[in-house]
Amino acid sequence: MSTESGSPIRCAVIGAGAWGTAIADRLARNGHAVTLWAREADVVESVNTRHENARFLAGATLHSRLRASSDMADALRGASLVVYAAPSHVLRPVVASGATYVENHAVLSVATKGIERETLALMTDVVASEAPGRAVVAISGPSFAVEVAAQQPTAVVAACDDVSAATFVQSAMSAPEFRVYTSDDVIGVELGGALKNVMALATGILDGLGLGYNPRAALMTRGLAEMTRLGVAIGARAETFAGLAGLGDLVLTCTGALSRNRAVGVAIGEGQTLDQALAGKESVAEGVLNTQSAKALADRAGVELPIIDATYRILFEGQAPRAAVAELMARELRAERD
Amino acid sequence: MSTESGSPIRCAVIGAGAWGTAIADRLARNGHAVTLWAREADVVESVNTRHENARFLAGATLHSRLRASSDMADALRGASLVVYAAPSHVLRPVVASGATYVENHAVLSVATKGIERETLALMTDVVASEAPGRAVVAISGPSFAVEVAAQQPTAVVAACDDVSAATFVQSAMSAPEFRVYTSDDVIGVELGGALKNVMALATGILDGLGLGYNPRAALMTRGLAEMTRLGVAIGARAETFAGLAGLGDLVLTCTGALSRNRAVGVAIGEGQTLDQALAGKESVAEGVLNTQSAKALADRAGVELPIIDATYRILFEGQAPRAAVAELMARELRAERD
Repeated sequence: MSTESGSPIRCAVIGAGAWGTAIADRLARNGHAVTLWAREADVVESVNTRHENARFLAGATLHSRLRASSDMADALRGASLVVYAAPSHVLRPVVASGATYVENHAVLSVATKGIERETLALMTDVVASEAPGRAVVAISGPSFAVEVAAQQPTAVVAACDDVSAATFVQSAMSAPEFRVYTSDDVIGVELGGALKNVMALATGILDGLGLGYNPRAALMTRGLAEMTRLGVAIGARAETFAGLAGLGDLVLTCTGALSRNRAVGVAIGEGQTLDQALAGKESVAEGVLNTQSAKALADRAGVELPIIDATYRILFEGQAPRAAVAELMARELRAERD
Repeated sequence: MSTESGSPIRCAVIGAGAWGTAIADRLARNGHAVTLWAREADVVESVNTRHENARFLAGATLHSRLRASSDMADALRGASLVVYAAPSHVLRPVVASGATYVENHAVLSVATKGIERETLALMTDVVASEAPGRAVVAISGPSFAVEVAAQQPTAVVAACDDVSAATFVQSAMSAPEFRVYTSDDVIGVELGGALKNVMALATGILDGLGLGYNPRAALMTRGLAEMTRLGVAIGARAETFAGLAGLGDLVLTCTGALSRNRAVGVAIGEGQTLDQALAGKESVAEGVLNTQSAKALADRAGVELPIIDATYRILFEGQAPRAAVAELMARELRAERD
């Protein structure tokens, strides 16, 4: 075990999707005693008997020390570090259902990205309100789960206004191939992870229109400026958006392997309606929900966000993608920093 | 003609590579009288008789108003706007050879990206020293020439400390599908365009090692931070690097169609030496020269640039790419903003 990963501790990872599974495996490889909570019995069985999560991370061999359980009390009791990784729209009930079993001394952390649609709360706020009284660390950054599980080099950010809690997570998770930076800008780190999904949708729409690399690069640049503007308006620091949880995750999602968000965008750019693009999908693409949340946040903060607005009009108001692009290009010429 | 492109003027574009040709075509489409200077007789003939630059931009149909000439005096006389687009290592003699024909009232502009290796001068400085007494505007941003020629949406920056000169270029070049922002941060805009070639090489090396999307996203994020740090140390503004000429061009070059710089990086990542990777290429990849220039600039300014240093060690000191990546990942853990 690397010295930088600190002493072995008990960890619980709540949610056994691809990302939760990869994080649990990362912690187990550092020598920690990790229990991965999964709702699905077949996932528990697959992890415990075959060291694989055949449903959500097929093909990756998990560390033999990692064990899974469908009993949340079993997973949480005695855990000094809890990492929540349930989907954003079910995070609140999942945290609430286990809250009484969380140790008082536990450091909580959340790897879910998103903005709760009804409340516009960030994921750390959701955790803090359902399991109060403990520090909550946001984990974000450019990290395809399948690459983390394959031990490809990856760098992420652990953010908390309590620096010692962020450092605790950094120490528990770090490895030579997995670099964890700390930050105290929780709002910036969380907003980056949520808003990049909107930009992934918008990028997909450009791809679906067949518009090439130049507009994609311009969209990502102006898109990051919008994300930064919204973040600063609600208390984040601008430089966080130039970091791994902003720019880094934006680049990964908009240019890496085709994400579900980008795929939905491509279908819409090719002429499908949102309903058509989502038909047959087992879950809604996060970016669709995040577009609504981002627009609501921007309206509340009084910030103008042309790309997020255009994406919203295409998704929910039936604007033709080509017309939206033309409108964006026709905005008054001006100095770049305005 | 769009009203935003101003009154028709006479323009000269000096250098008929892909990018010079696309710019000349863009200006001609705005109603300007444009002469494209090419050294090669076959290019002149191809443009004038077939409205195509068969050697450097094959397949794009150029505007019928665009004419080419191999006589620099003919191109420059009467031109109110001159755009230099010769390769960086020959820009100085090309500007010098036509300097006496440049009109006194002409606005000069340069679309070449790079840092002169011997002097570490930026391209605007090279133009200003060879054709002195006139404003020089840098044109940069994410712009594959073939997409500009196909009138795909594109956004670039025109930078000059003389704002009226930048606005003149903006007005002459802009079109609904070609958006030109102005900036007064010439150093930042030029440095972004030069240093992204180093990052393209580094990205290619990661690709050649087969390391996936996570490290590419991390490299681009930390790479942009390095570019910014060097820029600020020599007088640029940090926010310029978050704009089209920094982030935008970085994204385009590191994730778009395989550039020559990235291809050289891939070959090196796969185990070739620099000499092997360059063998048979008709010209040196700009990123190789820029790595030397960037390292020299950083040494002079006393700035630490781990990624640029690692790229330099791989290219010129024989360090194994995998060892360089391991070294980068092993740097002391710390807060992201440090």
